[in-house]
Amino acid sequence: MAAEPDRPVDDKETLVVPPGEGRATAVSVGTQFSVIDLDGGQVGDLFAFNADDLCEFASASHTRPAILKLFPRAGDTIFSNLRRPMMVLEEDHSPGRHDTLYAACDPQRYVGLGATALHRSCASNLAEAMAPFGGLRVPTPQPFNVFMEVDVDLAGNMAVKPASSGPGDRLVFRALMDLVVALSSCPMDIRPISTGGISRLAIGFEGPKL
Amino acid sequence: MAAEPDRPVDDKETLVVPPGEGRATAVSVGTQFSVIDLDGGQVGDLFAFNADDLCEFASASHTRPAILKLFPRAGDTIFSNLRRPMMVLEEDHSPGRHDTLYAACDPQRYVGLGATALHRSCASNLAEAMAPFGGLRVPTPQPFNVFMEVDVDLAGNMAVKPASSGPGDRLVFRALMDLVVALSSCPMDIRPISTGGISRLAIGFEGPKL
Repeated sequence: MAAEPDRPVDDKETLVVPPGEGRATAVSVGTQFSVIDLDGGQVGDLFAFNADDLCEFASASHTRPAILKLFPRAGDTIFSNLRRPMMVLEEDHSPGRHDTLYAACDPQRYVGLGATALHRSCASNLAEAMAPFGGLRVPTPQPFNVFMEVDVDLAGNMAVKPASSGPGDRLVFRALMDLVVALSSCPMDIRPISTGGISRLAIGFEGPKL
Repeated sequence: MAAEPDRPVDDKETLVVPPGEGRATAVSVGTQFSVIDLDGGQVGDLFAFNADDLCEFASASHTRPAILKLFPRAGDTIFSNLRRPMMVLEEDHSPGRHDTLYAACDPQRYVGLGATALHRSCASNLAEAMAPFGGLRVPTPQPFNVFMEVDVDLAGNMAVKPASSGPGDRLVFRALMDLVVALSSCPMDIRPISTGGISRLAIGFEGPKL
């Protein structure tokens, strides 16, 4: 359960996301922050909003054409629904697959899989996490599904594999505007997208939050 | 400029979308309707909304995981952001590639390409087309880009090819709920996604609109 083998985590500078839950934090422009798979094998749904206008959100459908990739890699910028650069993925210390194709799981998804609408979901986690910031202003945006491994073939068929990230694997982003960043430890325990049980994630800050 | 070589088009049952513009129409549950590339080579941005709740919209990010495909084919169902079946693609009389990866073009896109914000766009076409229905209630949904050909490789790199659809090529859908369907003839004339100039599309009805 080592949080980050290479570098000790200062609790004051790390926001731990409990297994299957969601958390959000303000991140000022210029700040570097990490999305950390503390225990390994855990898919996370990452959302970001313009702190000054929560109707502007990180958008997979605007980012894919800008980077011409289904799966962002180190060096790629994440764009908003207004096509503005929101944050850049500066480093990727993970196997490197991160999905931009799947909607957030939601109560309807779990009902469809035979669970109940009371099952935790990334959509409800996002709504809860955004409450202290005034609540969600738009329909649940499509998340960036960190550590989620989706394969595609040349015909466009999709297949999901269990996450192969290890304990302490992390992505390092830099905020390009003042953001509210939300992260959900995906509670999907019916389809095998996470491995080793639903576990913790974290948002870590290299230094003081600017 | 033959509209539909196989079958004459009755003007009363066909809504023509002028080149680079957008139109919307109500479609009752059970109705079959066609999306027609009248002149060939024209990409269209197709949107659909629940007629009884315009906050529910056809969603690429909910449809992809349901059909496990990037590019819907005949027999596939299009789902809403509430994961409800909205319409089914019953027939595909076209080369068969239809994109679910690209956001609608918008004023910001054209400014980024060196044009002006006054350039027509699928986002503004949608807003105009929805005005008679009370206007758009949500941020521009990601469209289903009919006749738009995007290639992907195994690493997830994307490449766009010019549309190869011919005059009269068409998709046949059946509405699974009361819908408002909007179609924009994509005015993108800077990147070569359409061929032979920006041209007309149409929404055709097999019989009376139920």
